[in-house]
Amino acid sequence: MFRADKFNDECGVFGVYGHEEAANLTYLGLYALQHRGQENAGIVSSAGEGLKVHKGNGLVADIFTETDIEHLEGTSAIGHVRYSTSGDSELRNAQPFVVDYSRGSIAVAHNGNIVNSLLLRAEFEAYGSIFQSTMDTEAVVHLIASCKERNLTDRIIYALGRLEGSYSIAFLTEETLVAARDPRGFRPLALGKLKDAWVVASETCAFDLIDAEYVRDVEPGEVIAIDKNGLRSFKPFAPVEHTPCIFEFIYFARPDSAIFGANVYNVRKEFGRVLAKEHPVEADVVIPVPDSGVAAALGYAQAAGLPFELGLVRNHYVGRTFIEPKDSIRHFGVKLKLNGVRDVLEGKRVIVVDDSIVRGTTSMKIIKMLREAGAKEVHMRVSSPPTTYPCYYGIDTPDRDKLIAANQSVADINKYITSDTLGYLSVEGLYRAIKDAGARGIVEPSHCDACFTGDYPVDIFKESRPPQLVLFK
Amino acid sequence: MFRADKFNDECGVFGVYGHEEAANLTYLGLYALQHRGQENAGIVSSAGEGLKVHKGNGLVADIFTETDIEHLEGTSAIGHVRYSTSGDSELRNAQPFVVDYSRGSIAVAHNGNIVNSLLLRAEFEAYGSIFQSTMDTEAVVHLIASCKERNLTDRIIYALGRLEGSYSIAFLTEETLVAARDPRGFRPLALGKLKDAWVVASETCAFDLIDAEYVRDVEPGEVIAIDKNGLRSFKPFAPVEHTPCIFEFIYFARPDSAIFGANVYNVRKEFGRVLAKEHPVEADVVIPVPDSGVAAALGYAQAAGLPFELGLVRNHYVGRTFIEPKDSIRHFGVKLKLNGVRDVLEGKRVIVVDDSIVRGTTSMKIIKMLREAGAKEVHMRVSSPPTTYPCYYGIDTPDRDKLIAANQSVADINKYITSDTLGYLSVEGLYRAIKDAGARGIVEPSHCDACFTGDYPVDIFKESRPPQLVLFK
Amino acid sequence: MFRADKFNDECGVFGVYGHEEAANLTYLGLYALQHRGQENAGIVSSAGEGLKVHKGNGLVADIFTETDIEHLEGTSAIGHVRYSTSGDSELRNAQPFVVDYSRGSIAVAHNGNIVNSLLLRAEFEAYGSIFQSTMDTEAVVHLIASCKERNLTDRIIYALGRLEGSYSIAFLTEETLVAARDPRGFRPLALGKLKDAWVVASETCAFDLIDAEYVRDVEPGEVIAIDKNGLRSFKPFAPVEHTPCIFEFIYFARPDSAIFGANVYNVRKEFGRVLAKEHPVEADVVIPVPDSGVAAALGYAQAAGLPFELGLVRNHYVGRTFIEPKDSIRHFGVKLKLNGVRDVLEGKRVIVVDDSIVRGTTSMKIIKMLREAGAKEVHMRVSSPPTTYPCYYGIDTPDRDKLIAANQSVADINKYITSDTLGYLSVEGLYRAIKDAGARGIVEPSHCDACFTGDYPVDIFKESRPPQLVLFK
Amino acid sequence: MFRADKFNDECGVFGVYGHEEAANLTYLGLYALQHRGQENAGIVSSAGEGLKVHKGNGLVADIFTETDIEHLEGTSAIGHVRYSTSGDSELRNAQPFVVDYSRGSIAVAHNGNIVNSLLLRAEFEAYGSIFQSTMDTEAVVHLIASCKERNLTDRIIYALGRLEGSYSIAFLTEETLVAARDPRGFRPLALGKLKDAWVVASETCAFDLIDAEYVRDVEPGEVIAIDKNGLRSFKPFAPVEHTPCIFEFIYFARPDSAIFGANVYNVRKEFGRVLAKEHPVEADVVIPVPDSGVAAALGYAQAAGLPFELGLVRNHYVGRTFIEPKDSIRHFGVKLKLNGVRDVLEGKRVIVVDDSIVRGTTSMKIIKMLREAGAKEVHMRVSSPPTTYPCYYGIDTPDRDKLIAANQSVADINKYITSDTLGYLSVEGLYRAIKDAGARGIVEPSHCDACFTGDYPVDIFKESRPPQLVLFK
Repeated sequence: MFRADKFNDECGVFGVYGHEEAANLTYLGLYALQHRGQENAGIVSSAGEGLKVHKGNGLVADIFTETDIEHLEGTSAIGHVRYSTSGDSELRNAQPFVVDYSRGSIAVAHNGNIVNSLLLRAEFEAYGSIFQSTMDTEAVVHLIASCKERNLTDRIIYALGRLEGSYSIAFLTEETLVAARDPRGFRPLALGKLKDAWVVASETCAFDLIDAEYVRDVEPGEVIAIDKNGLRSFKPFAPVEHTPCIFEFIYFARPDSAIFGANVYNVRKEFGRVLAKEHPVEADVVIPVPDSGVAAALGYAQAAGLPFELGLVRNHYVGRTFIEPKDSIRHFGVKLKLNGVRDVLEGKRVIVVDDSIVRGTTSMKIIKMLREAGAKEVHMRVSSPPTTYPCYYGIDTPDRDKLIAANQSVADINKYITSDTLGYLSVEGLYRAIKDAGARGIVEPSHCDACFTGDYPVDIFKESRPPQLVLFK
Repeated sequence: MFRADKFNDECGVFGVYGHEEAANLTYLGLYALQHRGQENAGIVSSAGEGLKVHKGNGLVADIFTETDIEHLEGTSAIGHVRYSTSGDSELRNAQPFVVDYSRGSIAVAHNGNIVNSLLLRAEFEAYGSIFQSTMDTEAVVHLIASCKERNLTDRIIYALGRLEGSYSIAFLTEETLVAARDPRGFRPLALGKLKDAWVVASETCAFDLIDAEYVRDVEPGEVIAIDKNGLRSFKPFAPVEHTPCIFEFIYFARPDSAIFGANVYNVRKEFGRVLAKEHPVEADVVIPVPDSGVAAALGYAQAAGLPFELGLVRNHYVGRTFIEPKDSIRHFGVKLKLNGVRDVLEGKRVIVVDDSIVRGTTSMKIIKMLREAGAKEVHMRVSSPPTTYPCYYGIDTPDRDKLIAANQSVADINKYITSDTLGYLSVEGLYRAIKDAGARGIVEPSHCDACFTGDYPVDIFKESRPPQLVLFK
Repeated sequence: MFRADKFNDECGVFGVYGHEEAANLTYLGLYALQHRGQENAGIVSSAGEGLKVHKGNGLVADIFTETDIEHLEGTSAIGHVRYSTSGDSELRNAQPFVVDYSRGSIAVAHNGNIVNSLLLRAEFEAYGSIFQSTMDTEAVVHLIASCKERNLTDRIIYALGRLEGSYSIAFLTEETLVAARDPRGFRPLALGKLKDAWVVASETCAFDLIDAEYVRDVEPGEVIAIDKNGLRSFKPFAPVEHTPCIFEFIYFARPDSAIFGANVYNVRKEFGRVLAKEHPVEADVVIPVPDSGVAAALGYAQAAGLPFELGLVRNHYVGRTFIEPKDSIRHFGVKLKLNGVRDVLEGKRVIVVDDSIVRGTTSMKIIKMLREAGAKEVHMRVSSPPTTYPCYYGIDTPDRDKLIAANQSVADINKYITSDTLGYLSVEGLYRAIKDAGARGIVEPSHCDACFTGDYPVDIFKESRPPQLVLFK
Repeated sequence: MFRADKFNDECGVFGVYGHEEAANLTYLGLYALQHRGQENAGIVSSAGEGLKVHKGNGLVADIFTETDIEHLEGTSAIGHVRYSTSGDSELRNAQPFVVDYSRGSIAVAHNGNIVNSLLLRAEFEAYGSIFQSTMDTEAVVHLIASCKERNLTDRIIYALGRLEGSYSIAFLTEETLVAARDPRGFRPLALGKLKDAWVVASETCAFDLIDAEYVRDVEPGEVIAIDKNGLRSFKPFAPVEHTPCIFEFIYFARPDSAIFGANVYNVRKEFGRVLAKEHPVEADVVIPVPDSGVAAALGYAQAAGLPFELGLVRNHYVGRTFIEPKDSIRHFGVKLKLNGVRDVLEGKRVIVVDDSIVRGTTSMKIIKMLREAGAKEVHMRVSSPPTTYPCYYGIDTPDRDKLIAANQSVADINKYITSDTLGYLSVEGLYRAIKDAGARGIVEPSHCDACFTGDYPVDIFKESRPPQLVLFK
């Protein structure tokens, strides 16, 4: 019945401890993190006597009514937004996950992917456990429940120690909020303060909305426990190389957030600057593919000394469903979201900057649109290297055979998408840009760049499922 | 977070194996069993490759669309309707319950109460298991998953053998439908045939709707497994006295159903006949409290030689919610459902027959209504003995301190509800009536009558929860 | 675009003047009148400064929330429930109808049919008016708006004087509630009192629910205006013969209501008594087709000295939509609503009493169901004469060619529906029964019986629409 | 009951004649025009036999299902999106408006305001007409219905001739599509072609989406009638000065549209350029208030030779409702939509460009946000003159007493919003920019600039309603 290979994919996590309006702050935090997941969302709060929960499908602003927020009593809360990948938007898979076990109730909100979750699942099932969702996160609570340690933090540390993969994760019990980040630090997680209350969030933009102060990142491999005695930090795991996800910078995080020690907007602009140096071309104008390509396009234009224009206008009312005409006019796709501005493009040599190329079809349509709006030349510039490998740590990417750069040369892609020239940022350029942009904080010395290089920092267990067990038929 | 004492209460169960339209037949079956539960409903079907599930809150006709039914592919299916007890109508508690475990997927639909479910839960939690609902049924799947037997039926038999309490229950896997009834046979469960397909249902009225033929009851303690090799019957449990629920006859089952070997309408009429002999009174007219008191009132009128009239009219559009006026006119309760017919009642000595008195407030309001409509005398007759003990095996009853007959004498109740005279059917009369009515089949020699006598056939573990565990706060 | 022949059909009307909780009382009144219309409902209230309105599709209990009722401020209100005829359940056709015109705002709630509405519509359109609904009621407000009288009551009297057909109608302006009944009194309308407040309702069962006292019927041809100066009665129309709808007694009104001076339950029982005398037959048991046939079956059984039993059980959870199986088992229709009780029917000669036969198909299915449940003989008795003509004054009936009794003899119908014998109440019997039952009040000396006799008291303009106008294409 | 001063405000209009997928094209057109109105939307289509209609509240993508579109049969259709002004989002006021009158059915979709609608309404009511909405558009259909001309176009021309104010309007009957623009051409309306089909739309971005070719603008005072005989153009009204709304350029239209002969993006950039010349200031960076200020900020930056950055990030998931925390953190307003990018702003002298200042509160919050994110100086530049008068021709503006520039000097406003310096574009600058930008087409020689100058091209009748009529209380 269940899809066994359903990962948790892109998500946003928020938590607050010690504030009278814990649920409302969490609601606001999820609001600010909405770009990390639009499929479903949930909040769990604790008033010291049992956990309260509300989850729903859709956007945060639609899921929670004022009554719901009032019902979520208590001074601590965690929340979660989840990204829609394959249309499997069942509420059953919404988080936070809440269960009862021998020590009481616990709620979990998780961003990342547990790559050994199927092995753990098989192990638990072999010992007689049952699973009710398709989420890798369910394995985490089984681990916690099976641990004999008397102390909550010890149980959580035991459970996290069994996990392979990526997690920025928050736990809530009646008395305690625990936040943790995997030893490699794949996904971001920031720690903040709002008066006497502690807050954690996937991105700092959530702090800005609630006027919380950014304190520091939860460090890779760190477990933070907050209760009435205050905040304690644990580093229970053997240190390994840090590999924060480079794609958070390229595409996923909000430009006004600071993650991994650097401001995202700044990093993206720097990508554009380096890209301009790596792939210069004679042109009249630089335009972005909005919204994710804007900062890189600005950087490119500044470095290249070319005028920056908004040659593609985005329709922000694009909904989930769309009814296409039957025969005559089909395959709207990009057209529903973007439209070319003729006065910007007509007769011009145009450099268009996008953050990445996945399948190539979108780029092809955009270039067609630009030419139809009068562009004389179209030079595609991509502010990341060719995406050649899928992500197993939390970014939704198609299988390798769907990734155009995994199967074609840059020259072939240039042909396919019908650009005049095509230039990707190099991996070296990527790192240089991050380094240059990281003025404000301590930038991670290394990153996970598996999507470009295939160097997966953590082994993938996808194929290693013991075949003797008849699972998930 | 969870309410630990949440029992499964009143429900209806349906299953079909070997029919092209399994889901649609299940939908129809649930439709016919809707009186057994209006809170939520669900269907799980199997097409041989995974289980399909659809559940929702509300009435069967509102939950399932044609698309839903089409999506529930396969030739076997089970379904469930659940009664709303305390407003805890969360979808999380809807059945069939579907889980993955080491042997694959399994779905469960359960009518009854597992009285040792908290002990089992504590045991499982002590070994590290997690619980995601407040349903006693969740313990059953943990038992199945923890069993090492290779054969599904053996695992189910093992699990059922660990249960105390009442269950008429259906399981569905990809290949097999299993139906079982607890050794005492508290709740009804009938076996039927529709051409080559086998069907099971809580009541035979579900067979009538789909033109299935009633074959026999699933016997107390019987486990029936149906797969491609046909139907096999098991009797794995030590025989004990059969104690089918006498309240199914009095109130819960539909009058057109045959349960425990007798037609419900017939039994109810016989209740009325015996009641007339036990508690005669001079009167002009016999009226029922519709709808559940109709058959008994008819029997009473026939035995007493008095005219039967519908002196109370029922409004069938009564919804779940109702907005009361602020000050002037309050406490509608019964008035929303019933209204007296003045022409029937005015100046008359009225015998009003109801199936039972729980708290007494409804009876009081009905009698007030009858007097306001002109009744000169009101003689209350109850077609069951005084309800003095709560039910722990699947009927929703309030605690003992709320049961008026547990705390007051018949004379005091008569005073409280303001009737001129009050007569209850005796326990002996109850059994005599059942015996007399059971012409068509073999009536059970004994019944569970704990709600009247306090003789609980199975011990209640309600207080026996190990106190050292901190659970469900 | 519009369906020109859309009549207003069956409806319920309620109004209250001078009560702090006017909207809530109206809500309750509509609740009690729900059987007169389940398609949509609405309430308009007046707080002296503008009218407030809330309308919706569905049942009263689902349409209005507590907030809606609170929003409907004011001490006077009118409400309306509307019957679903042909699936044209558009909210646009929901009442009360509210419009602005030169003298302010006015709301209308109407039960009945204006048979000359198309002529009026054509006339208004010829003078340049526009129409926005398909309701005949819209013509009424055009008449009021076009009238130059300074006084509201005069304008309403002018408008009503132009109408042909049936109307029990309530108007609400900011200061005044006006209630009226057409000169022939086709539809019922009762006047009541609740402390200092006046109430009007289609049936007295609405008074019972709110503890209002029945004062008298609004008389045929009477216009009642209620404002701060109290209640004034007008009889502005030339007196004509009164022809209250006999079908209200037979089928439509609630049995606990008193209409046209007699209790409905009583009249129906009397129909059964006379029917027993007109069409006796040797039999073992008398059963009704529930719910509308119950009273007549009781009367039949009492007069015939035969036992009355509930041989057909009704499923009260029947919803609007229903998903039929694809091939194997079709045409559920009656089976979804009714099921035979084998123990009552097996081997018996059964008299089954229904209120009317329209197309004959339902009767045929019921008789088949009774035989399948074991009935040895089935004698159909109908507590009204053969329905041979459609109604144009407010009851939803099919066209003549669909009425089986308009096209076949009783003997042929008996054959078609497969009963052993078939007996209809005679027209004379109908009147005798009404007279005998009318002990409590002054029964109308005559009735509209056009559905049985074709004697239409008011001419039908259905065909007389001026053909030169191109309307409602 | 009705709000008499409810104007039609901002809206979008679309129409198509002669295409197999008329409704689907209209759906797409409305999708592209969604920025002109998010309150409700509707489509009316004609298949030659009656008009089909579907309307709903919310966004186009949510209102119409595939079934709805299929139901909207026919080869011609018109559609409408409406802006939410005062929360009066009743479906009753949704357009297209559809009515029956003596000549058949007609549908109307209107963008603009009829300033004499109350006078017309009073006149019609005086003659006995009724009104069912609060829309000024309802007066138009009354005019058409009251006209005795035999020809549809003549009737429409008559009706339009009676109107004062602004209208870009489309009519649909079973055979004909009529589109018209008021003699002053306040609102845009473009004519396009898609193969053999004619299309009209408020903005050309709708043409781009459906691959239609822009033919020309519907000219001010032009009435275009399209039927099976093709397109005919009428110019029935006396020529007056053209006064297209200058605010469409400043704020309302989409940047990728061409209206009034010029590309909106281009005009906005030119506003920025001129603004830079009129109000230079020493600064480090130019940032826009997204999205409407982007083009002007780009123009400013280019003209000033300063770097352009996105210093404010917009959250595009902002919903309609939002739950604020109770006490501690209030008045989110702007914060929910915008967040400052610290790395762009910190220590910088910032020029922030917005399209207009209405009340001043939003500007104040933005400036506070910029300073909190580290801006050393904040220089506000506005790409339009001070808004000193409300609009009566279709743009939603508050009353004069709420317009900060109507009541305070620029120096005072600068103080109030806490900017270091404040500069507005001059009226002369506005016109110069439009002229400079209009290279591609013939720019209108004059515009309505009443919001800046108070020179209303058409008299406002707001106060002139005859007081003797007691209307709309």
